[in-house]
Amino acid sequence: MTIAAETRLVPERALSAFGAALLTRVGVPESDAREIIDNLLQADLRDVESHGVVRLPIYVERLAAKATNPRPDIRIVRETATSAVVDGDNGMGQLVGLRAMQIAIDKALRGDGMCTFVSVRNSNHYGAAASFAQMACPHDMIGFSYTIGGINHMVPWGGAEARLGNNPFAVAIPAGDERPVVLDMACSVAARGKIIVAAKEGTSIPPDWAVGPDGQPTTDPVEALQGFVQPVGGPKGYALTLTIGLLSSMLSGAGFGSEVTHMYDDLARPQNIGHLFGVLPIWLFEDVAVFRRRMDKAIGEMRNARRAPGVDRIYLPGEREELSLAHRREHGIPIGVGVLAELRELGTRYGVELDMAGPSGAQRA
Amino acid sequence: MTIAAETRLVPERALSAFGAALLTRVGVPESDAREIIDNLLQADLRDVESHGVVRLPIYVERLAAKATNPRPDIRIVRETATSAVVDGDNGMGQLVGLRAMQIAIDKALRGDGMCTFVSVRNSNHYGAAASFAQMACPHDMIGFSYTIGGINHMVPWGGAEARLGNNPFAVAIPAGDERPVVLDMACSVAARGKIIVAAKEGTSIPPDWAVGPDGQPTTDPVEALQGFVQPVGGPKGYALTLTIGLLSSMLSGAGFGSEVTHMYDDLARPQNIGHLFGVLPIWLFEDVAVFRRRMDKAIGEMRNARRAPGVDRIYLPGEREELSLAHRREHGIPIGVGVLAELRELGTRYGVELDMAGPSGAQRA
Repeated sequence: MTIAAETRLVPERALSAFGAALLTRVGVPESDAREIIDNLLQADLRDVESHGVVRLPIYVERLAAKATNPRPDIRIVRETATSAVVDGDNGMGQLVGLRAMQIAIDKALRGDGMCTFVSVRNSNHYGAAASFAQMACPHDMIGFSYTIGGINHMVPWGGAEARLGNNPFAVAIPAGDERPVVLDMACSVAARGKIIVAAKEGTSIPPDWAVGPDGQPTTDPVEALQGFVQPVGGPKGYALTLTIGLLSSMLSGAGFGSEVTHMYDDLARPQNIGHLFGVLPIWLFEDVAVFRRRMDKAIGEMRNARRAPGVDRIYLPGEREELSLAHRREHGIPIGVGVLAELRELGTRYGVELDMAGPSGAQRA
Repeated sequence: MTIAAETRLVPERALSAFGAALLTRVGVPESDAREIIDNLLQADLRDVESHGVVRLPIYVERLAAKATNPRPDIRIVRETATSAVVDGDNGMGQLVGLRAMQIAIDKALRGDGMCTFVSVRNSNHYGAAASFAQMACPHDMIGFSYTIGGINHMVPWGGAEARLGNNPFAVAIPAGDERPVVLDMACSVAARGKIIVAAKEGTSIPPDWAVGPDGQPTTDPVEALQGFVQPVGGPKGYALTLTIGLLSSMLSGAGFGSEVTHMYDDLARPQNIGHLFGVLPIWLFEDVAVFRRRMDKAIGEMRNARRAPGVDRIYLPGEREELSLAHRREHGIPIGVGVLAELRELGTRYGVELDMAGPSGAQRA
């Protein structure tokens, strides 16, 4: 969801060329830079702007400070037929995630097929959880993607001290003629970005969005920003974010709780972010054609259910994002003018121009 | 949470003897009956009364009507080194779940260890998701347990027609000196039972608990009961319950959506409930001693976080339930007088007496 009030349409290729150039300026090899920026732009295209180019400034800053390693040696440090532990060598989370999920898929393809899980340590903020889970679908596999967040924003239920990230996870399930069903969620009621907007605009927030520094619910966004975001369903969301955090960090030796290094505030230390990826090959359980047909039927039953008054369409998880992707690929990506100014300033610092027409000048928003 | 206003303390052994006798009266072999009632009582002991003996009447009714098979031939119909598909032969869900999770654990123990998943079809309502996930912990494994619910109570987000169950899932992660962390949640904001209580007491309900038959939020519990329970976090909970339902049914040929047979209203047809169980052996990823130590540290950080005013203690997921279990095992299980009357009536019908002192008369509540 675009939060910014005023935006400009920028073609994908313009942002891609700009981002790749920026990343290479801080030491990332060109092919890695392209993979990373494509992953970020997939988020922007899918209307998940929180994991898109809005993060480029902090990523570049961490790379420049060598808090993130621009040329990581991403490697398997432990493995069996159905598992691997990957050390990300403090590389960009997107790159580490792509490599680790590919290792899971490659292992799962061996022999008759294998249910495979890959845990990861020494990674960084990996962006959109869905982008990794979805990699499983073209291989007729269900994909799982879990990560611990890079900032502690949440309290244990009843607490008044941030010990938990707003940990996201994704599950992607392939279908037949229909698009895959893609769950991708973090555990807070509302994104922190929405509270920032409310604070800027001087409006109040619903009482279930956040607690103040004392752990009590608040409708004042300024107080909320000094406090903590609230988990979905109260204790349910607390249990969920804790579980995702433990799954992401305990199987690999990644940081948890007080060990988590703040992504924005601490540029001296590596983050040691952990992830867990998993794949279940469908053919181990069910004939793939039958599975696809039944998924299409299930999806149809959701979409064609009787609708509440005023509802034009029922969406499947991940469907809005895919529709956005198709539209923005053609018409451009709306970027907030504030973010755009920040990107241009960053470009000026590194001698990279954001050419709004894209590298060839062929597309114009 | 005990919802009933008035309760009686009943010793575990009294309920165990009563339940086992009842189940054998409707054709369940005695050893199976003991396993099933122990699973139900584990829920009552753990203060999860919604999955305990309160369900005995409908289970017995379905068994008596042969809508559930009292002597199922639970068998593997498809398998590889890391997977199995289990046909529950329309047996009691608790029994099928115990067998299927054991198959997952046995497979995971082979060789160096295997990440293993087992999908299940032709099962029934399996009770507490946690009870199966927890079986993994003594084997130094993380356990996953997913099921599709036996009743469609929820709408696709924006819909006004029940197409989804309030699908529960559980994850159990072992620790060292600490108890395992056990997430067990369904996807609604509030249990339907709480809305029933509000309707009986004539009080209103919060607007995020339910929508009426038209799909619009309501604070009237009577209208809510004609409508649908609301998912946690709105579209997040919808995506979550859909995903859990698909994971539980699409890998095994179990029923989904319109194929789901109502547990209470349809005694003519089998339910064809599906589950998915998974285990990750910890030693594939991390030294078990290190894992246990880090889990204990993580748990300590939650428990010892600064507390919000008025909060006496911060609990870990599953901790309240374990404390309840220890207490109730010693002091008895509080059973609502209405449920108790229903159980006694059921006993009368089948010639089984609920001896409040238990079979030997040695314990008294």
